[in-house]
Amino acid sequence: MATDDNLPPSGEADDHFHDECGVFGIFGRQDAAAIATLGLHALQHRGQEAAGIVSFDGSQFHVERHIGLIGDTFTKPAVLERLKGARAIGHTRYSTTGGSGLRNVQPFFAELAEGGLAIAHNGNITNAMTVQRRLQKDGAIFSSTSDTETILHLVATSKETHLNARFIDAVRQLEGAFSLVALTSKKMIGCRDPLGIRPLVLGDLDGAYIFASETCALDIIGARFVRDVAPGEMIVVTEEGIESFFPFEPQRPRFCIFEYIYFARPDSSVEGRNVYEVRKRIGAELARENPVEADIVVPVPDSGTPAAIGFAQAAGLPFELGIIRNHYVGRTFIQPTDSIRHMGVRLKHNANRRSIEGKRVVLVDDSIVRGTTSQKIVQMVRDAGAKEVHMRIASPPTRASCFYGVDTPSTAKLLASRMSIEEMAEFIRVDSLGFLSIDGLYRAVGEAGRNGDAPQFCDACFTAEYPTQLTDRHGSDNVRQLSLLAGGQ
Amino acid sequence: MATDDNLPPSGEADDHFHDECGVFGIFGRQDAAAIATLGLHALQHRGQEAAGIVSFDGSQFHVERHIGLIGDTFTKPAVLERLKGARAIGHTRYSTTGGSGLRNVQPFFAELAEGGLAIAHNGNITNAMTVQRRLQKDGAIFSSTSDTETILHLVATSKETHLNARFIDAVRQLEGAFSLVALTSKKMIGCRDPLGIRPLVLGDLDGAYIFASETCALDIIGARFVRDVAPGEMIVVTEEGIESFFPFEPQRPRFCIFEYIYFARPDSSVEGRNVYEVRKRIGAELARENPVEADIVVPVPDSGTPAAIGFAQAAGLPFELGIIRNHYVGRTFIQPTDSIRHMGVRLKHNANRRSIEGKRVVLVDDSIVRGTTSQKIVQMVRDAGAKEVHMRIASPPTRASCFYGVDTPSTAKLLASRMSIEEMAEFIRVDSLGFLSIDGLYRAVGEAGRNGDAPQFCDACFTAEYPTQLTDRHGSDNVRQLSLLAGGQ
Amino acid sequence: MATDDNLPPSGEADDHFHDECGVFGIFGRQDAAAIATLGLHALQHRGQEAAGIVSFDGSQFHVERHIGLIGDTFTKPAVLERLKGARAIGHTRYSTTGGSGLRNVQPFFAELAEGGLAIAHNGNITNAMTVQRRLQKDGAIFSSTSDTETILHLVATSKETHLNARFIDAVRQLEGAFSLVALTSKKMIGCRDPLGIRPLVLGDLDGAYIFASETCALDIIGARFVRDVAPGEMIVVTEEGIESFFPFEPQRPRFCIFEYIYFARPDSSVEGRNVYEVRKRIGAELARENPVEADIVVPVPDSGTPAAIGFAQAAGLPFELGIIRNHYVGRTFIQPTDSIRHMGVRLKHNANRRSIEGKRVVLVDDSIVRGTTSQKIVQMVRDAGAKEVHMRIASPPTRASCFYGVDTPSTAKLLASRMSIEEMAEFIRVDSLGFLSIDGLYRAVGEAGRNGDAPQFCDACFTAEYPTQLTDRHGSDNVRQLSLLAGGQ
Amino acid sequence: MATDDNLPPSGEADDHFHDECGVFGIFGRQDAAAIATLGLHALQHRGQEAAGIVSFDGSQFHVERHIGLIGDTFTKPAVLERLKGARAIGHTRYSTTGGSGLRNVQPFFAELAEGGLAIAHNGNITNAMTVQRRLQKDGAIFSSTSDTETILHLVATSKETHLNARFIDAVRQLEGAFSLVALTSKKMIGCRDPLGIRPLVLGDLDGAYIFASETCALDIIGARFVRDVAPGEMIVVTEEGIESFFPFEPQRPRFCIFEYIYFARPDSSVEGRNVYEVRKRIGAELARENPVEADIVVPVPDSGTPAAIGFAQAAGLPFELGIIRNHYVGRTFIQPTDSIRHMGVRLKHNANRRSIEGKRVVLVDDSIVRGTTSQKIVQMVRDAGAKEVHMRIASPPTRASCFYGVDTPSTAKLLASRMSIEEMAEFIRVDSLGFLSIDGLYRAVGEAGRNGDAPQFCDACFTAEYPTQLTDRHGSDNVRQLSLLAGGQ
Repeated sequence: MATDDNLPPSGEADDHFHDECGVFGIFGRQDAAAIATLGLHALQHRGQEAAGIVSFDGSQFHVERHIGLIGDTFTKPAVLERLKGARAIGHTRYSTTGGSGLRNVQPFFAELAEGGLAIAHNGNITNAMTVQRRLQKDGAIFSSTSDTETILHLVATSKETHLNARFIDAVRQLEGAFSLVALTSKKMIGCRDPLGIRPLVLGDLDGAYIFASETCALDIIGARFVRDVAPGEMIVVTEEGIESFFPFEPQRPRFCIFEYIYFARPDSSVEGRNVYEVRKRIGAELARENPVEADIVVPVPDSGTPAAIGFAQAAGLPFELGIIRNHYVGRTFIQPTDSIRHMGVRLKHNANRRSIEGKRVVLVDDSIVRGTTSQKIVQMVRDAGAKEVHMRIASPPTRASCFYGVDTPSTAKLLASRMSIEEMAEFIRVDSLGFLSIDGLYRAVGEAGRNGDAPQFCDACFTAEYPTQLTDRHGSDNVRQLSLLAGGQ
Repeated sequence: MATDDNLPPSGEADDHFHDECGVFGIFGRQDAAAIATLGLHALQHRGQEAAGIVSFDGSQFHVERHIGLIGDTFTKPAVLERLKGARAIGHTRYSTTGGSGLRNVQPFFAELAEGGLAIAHNGNITNAMTVQRRLQKDGAIFSSTSDTETILHLVATSKETHLNARFIDAVRQLEGAFSLVALTSKKMIGCRDPLGIRPLVLGDLDGAYIFASETCALDIIGARFVRDVAPGEMIVVTEEGIESFFPFEPQRPRFCIFEYIYFARPDSSVEGRNVYEVRKRIGAELARENPVEADIVVPVPDSGTPAAIGFAQAAGLPFELGIIRNHYVGRTFIQPTDSIRHMGVRLKHNANRRSIEGKRVVLVDDSIVRGTTSQKIVQMVRDAGAKEVHMRIASPPTRASCFYGVDTPSTAKLLASRMSIEEMAEFIRVDSLGFLSIDGLYRAVGEAGRNGDAPQFCDACFTAEYPTQLTDRHGSDNVRQLSLLAGGQ
Repeated sequence: MATDDNLPPSGEADDHFHDECGVFGIFGRQDAAAIATLGLHALQHRGQEAAGIVSFDGSQFHVERHIGLIGDTFTKPAVLERLKGARAIGHTRYSTTGGSGLRNVQPFFAELAEGGLAIAHNGNITNAMTVQRRLQKDGAIFSSTSDTETILHLVATSKETHLNARFIDAVRQLEGAFSLVALTSKKMIGCRDPLGIRPLVLGDLDGAYIFASETCALDIIGARFVRDVAPGEMIVVTEEGIESFFPFEPQRPRFCIFEYIYFARPDSSVEGRNVYEVRKRIGAELARENPVEADIVVPVPDSGTPAAIGFAQAAGLPFELGIIRNHYVGRTFIQPTDSIRHMGVRLKHNANRRSIEGKRVVLVDDSIVRGTTSQKIVQMVRDAGAKEVHMRIASPPTRASCFYGVDTPSTAKLLASRMSIEEMAEFIRVDSLGFLSIDGLYRAVGEAGRNGDAPQFCDACFTAEYPTQLTDRHGSDNVRQLSLLAGGQ
Repeated sequence: MATDDNLPPSGEADDHFHDECGVFGIFGRQDAAAIATLGLHALQHRGQEAAGIVSFDGSQFHVERHIGLIGDTFTKPAVLERLKGARAIGHTRYSTTGGSGLRNVQPFFAELAEGGLAIAHNGNITNAMTVQRRLQKDGAIFSSTSDTETILHLVATSKETHLNARFIDAVRQLEGAFSLVALTSKKMIGCRDPLGIRPLVLGDLDGAYIFASETCALDIIGARFVRDVAPGEMIVVTEEGIESFFPFEPQRPRFCIFEYIYFARPDSSVEGRNVYEVRKRIGAELARENPVEADIVVPVPDSGTPAAIGFAQAAGLPFELGIIRNHYVGRTFIQPTDSIRHMGVRLKHNANRRSIEGKRVVLVDDSIVRGTTSQKIVQMVRDAGAKEVHMRIASPPTRASCFYGVDTPSTAKLLASRMSIEEMAEFIRVDSLGFLSIDGLYRAVGEAGRNGDAPQFCDACFTAEYPTQLTDRHGSDNVRQLSLLAGGQ
């Protein structure tokens, strides 16, 4: 989904792409909302700022939306008690602003002529502004700045009579990335865009169907993984069972390859591949492509750890936890005072001098975005006495913004968009710097290499080759981006 | 506005009609939101549960909505800081439920094709459900259960091109009671329904125009009272000044006479009459119509006080504060335990034995709704040693529900709808019970009496003569009442 | 009790003496803490900022202390649930600062060698600092800046063996005003200083004994008033019943006469007199001493109301609510912005123009402290069109600070300490100003007049004749006042 | 410090010893409280439930104590602003109950005759109850149930005149484990018990001296590690510099060996050894003592990770992250409903099937306390398809309670106290189970083995050989344990 703000990540600068969301749905199981709470808890890494659940109890819908971690908000007995019913969908999102930010917390719900409809969305609709302006001209009003509300309007204004047809009518007008879960008084629907950019899996818990962004949300509740929802597939769950539709023109799928690099949890399997195993293979490819004489391999925890293990195994070097991460960093850790701000405080990471001193260190991280965090970490490792620091990055240089539901800085702020690898090495002050090649990345996920004519994945952040139109961006320079509206509107 | 819940009033049963709302708007004055905060604070008696303010700073709208008293929520510096701009409208409302109740807190705001529109509404649209169903059939989606959102949709879907015309197009489709204040990027609009059921006044603060439900909201900020907005009038404020429109067929006004009895603040003047003075005249009429040999006149504080003063002066009896009210009753005072619940705890009122003991007491209250509180208060006065208790009510018996923005119990629960005055006297255990006659009430407000052919006020709660159609009620028995939807939907 | 801060009263300047506390105790009744909650709620006017309850369940003590109104904090089920037992004492206090202010919230509790002891205190110990310094020299440590903790230490360090004797030993070392309620595992004790400066009454609820600052705390729960605890009396309640002790040298009582003027609730009876009736007599005396040709008598609500009724009855003038008070003023109402601050905002009171315009108004208030509020109110009444404004004050001029548990400004800030009555009249801009004489005040409470040789009451705030030593004040100029320590220590 | 409650760890059962505290102090540096906040943040793993800081600004002390994580409470600008001054000490603690639990949050502060004294304490005084009873008999009163308050009383009641002497007098009366940091208006004191059971280090930040429980609290602010405070040493910091005292009879040190196994952070160095390196050596010793044919080594994250790396390296087996930990577990995660409770929900850990399936797995954990978590984790690994599961524990069996500031279950609940290793293996359902020997543990920390006559460390939890007297325990069976008092007293 598109967001209405670009909050800096909390704590010290977290130099990663962000803004993934997680979705979850369950149909036909007592305590559906409690189960959704657990599922969303397992998807918390996809969005830490706010969450929502809509349940249906057979006659009424119930909505709860809260800012904060699932484990702090949805676990309160009063909240769960209000979310009655055996069907529920939920959503966890990356960022919100202030109190009124609740307005943009999903799932979105509306009373249509034919009854209630709730939608939770992971991805970003790249023609949402254009569609919204058309709808507004016809008299539609919008209560949020989220592209998800646009989908609700498209279902509401469809000329079709049956809900399935109305839903199909709506999603056919969408462009971009979307993995949706929807709930009506009769049905739960899961749907992925024709390229399948964002993940969505189907699970089963003693006969109750489940949709979830990743398999880790099935594991937490002991549900069985059935299969991935296919790119372009719309699955409708009713009391009678499930039905599958393919409403879109068939296209070659383009799953987001960055899900393997950073977004998904290592214990998840998405699109048939286990994330941890892919990351280890990435590390191995990285070692082969960028060998170096060194004493130890140290991950930047936690995201660099699997690749570092793979690197160490492939390179025959010892894997060491030379950097320790403080997991207690509060969500609102503000650098207290000016005099403190200049102390170079290490809130989140600390180098372990005794493991590093006098060593030639291979530092493995998943990606470099702005490079500022890398700079600090390298300095910290040097301060701890490393003889040499060799940085190895488990992905190609990130050169382009993502328009598919990921919070990326403007291209100008991406280090790789304005520096050569040598310049970057100098900027972050390492003895050597190596990135994984794009073909190496494709090999790690099991391909022979990137098929330049018909790439097997969405890799636009590395190649700037966007697999869909970007109507809101290209159609008109005057189009206001939904993401630029004031949070409190 | 219609509400989605029927919360019992907090504290011990408060046996009054409720659900009035207050509206306020200011155009062209620095710190508009702070001034709106003060205005709403003066209107707090019209709605204590939640409030909202929308401001416009010349380029963006800002929205804040909070559950709780104005003085606890909108006075926080961070809240006011976010509400930038020299134009603002606000709303205070009677009731909400839980966290998600925020969804129904006004003003409502939407981005229309031509820009932002915010509306705050006091009253109730009696054909809102019917209009909503028509709009939903055309694809409109609703994010609240409030009739105010319906007005937004009507403006949004109007075929007219200019905002004034669109607004007129919208309000012409409304039936019922509405005193509206609206804000766009260019204008502030104040509008009353053709009968002028709810109050709305126009004020001026050093050249900045103000709309407010009552004059007390002008007094708090030292603004000048200009005039009442006329029934059926729509006043448009722009940077150029104000313009007046009369978009409705002219009708004889029917201002809510209960505003004088209970809703409005005694220091306000609405529709040309000072509320305190009317209440004193009501007390005097009551004394004339229902004389009694007694020693003292005691008000049920605070709402019975002005009528008791009028009664005492007319009857030549001493006025005494024989009942003391505890103003600290928290909004959430729950009777602590079962064993406590049966102690007959006096959270809110206490009789002053030394003033009452051995006396023949005239007890003056403004109205009787269910009669349960009267019962308790009479018992308390008897326990304090009163020799006789004569209850005098400053209004006729309330026999019918209100559909114009007032929270009334179902007719069956209204004591006067199922008992004669004698039965009521027995029920509340008084030595005598007297109500003001309907003609006495009209005399107190300055009329010769009620004109049965063309009543000068809306007095439906006493007479069941509703001055407008009640489409949602009569059109179909199947129509869901907006007010019956679950709060958390 | 002495406080560690001098918070300005919330809302617009509230020009009154403050810092009274309320105490309550109950022994031998199921849900003792819930009953104490109700009792403290009735005593809320004696202290609005924080409250505490200690209960004993037969084997353990339980303590809860919270900042905020009783009705917002102690009515939560979880709080009451933790306060198990059939015995409880409680305290409500006027002022605290910040979070750490909780440290000073009473009752105080300590584990002594012989078991737990909790004490709640209304008043102020005028030799607390001196005693504290002596105790510290012997190795005692203090965890608060409250004089109440000093009493705990005196009990703890007594050389006596039995609790009664230890308690007597302790209170005999105290100087100043104290109405105490204490709880041990065996007993509840109520005790007043030998002059009986602060009130304390004994009640009975179906056999369970109660101590409370005022009778209104008995009324709320339907308890029976037994008698005042006598000045200098110590009553010990055990399972066997009550026992009375008089540990002090007999002295002529000096009850605080200001309790009748402002502190106590009008429906309470203290020291044998009903407060409302005394206030009415004060109004009548005031009318006799300061007659004036006028049209109406208007109280400054709510504290001036009973005296205004008495004044109007004695003067044969109509009593009118010419000033309306907004009861919704939040505890933290901050004047929002600078530009607002200069608007002369009327948060708390509003004059009712229609009652006042063209009239010669007698304005009745209970006292003048700094005079700033009087100034504003007079101006407001003039702005509302009063022809003349005659201020009548229901007490003599307040000229001296109180050291007995009342928050008074320094003498220099007391208007009457630096101006003659004529100057004061000019300062607050009234046509005439009249105070009650000290003899008139004594007549209103039933005396023939003030006995200058042996005054019947403490009236030090009017006369600067302090009935006790003020050791901490006079003993040494270097003595740190407890009230000057930082709140957060 | 001793605690007054035994809260179950939040989230799913966390089968570890707990109740370590962390202390920090800084003397002579602007923004001392902000720096203390950072230091405590780095020590958060030693106590997550509450924290406190006392600062001194040259004339006044300021105290803040809050329940919750440092990063959520002490980073608020208003909190830090109140903690003025260039000197501060702080404390983070494991457990508290309810609101009133604040009473037990350290540092403790008292006004003694000679000025303020604040103390923060890590450890447990094993004769605190006995001393407390003696002090109470002399009239001392206690406002907490913490043994730290006892130390304050001992300083307060000392007959010595100078603070150093008074402090020495106090600590000489203590028995048990204590690493203290104290602050007066002139000095900061750091002191360890003669056995040096708990750690305490001395650091330097541009000339400002620092005390901290572990070196990681120096690293976060870039401070220099000077040296460990020696067992039995008392270091006094003044504006003139530092002075060292050895007030106790010299004894052979007995540092807590469990600090190396679990309590300390891996990047810290305590008593001259780097924790991560010790843990790796423990893993290597474990591999040597308990070899097994297997395919992969999997840590139970995060505490088992360093030992697993050491095990894998020594055994020549691949190290794999076969179990992924969810770091988002809220502090209050309650299993939502009964039906959920029986689903075997995996809130905290998830096995990564693809890494484990078909493999012979060596599972490495740091210790086994009750065995319940081990049971669940083994089951999870089996469910994920492991062919064999071999559990290796990086410590000897824990057989006895700790009385030195660690929250251990009663001996009866310790799995190793009632089962043989074979029985334990059966209980947790592993194919084999191996513990590190006590001599292996001593080898890992660099000794040749355990010296049975004069053990080099405190290892009482493995051997039940307590290095100090346990007066409160042995002196009398009737002694109430401080830890058994009600939290809310």
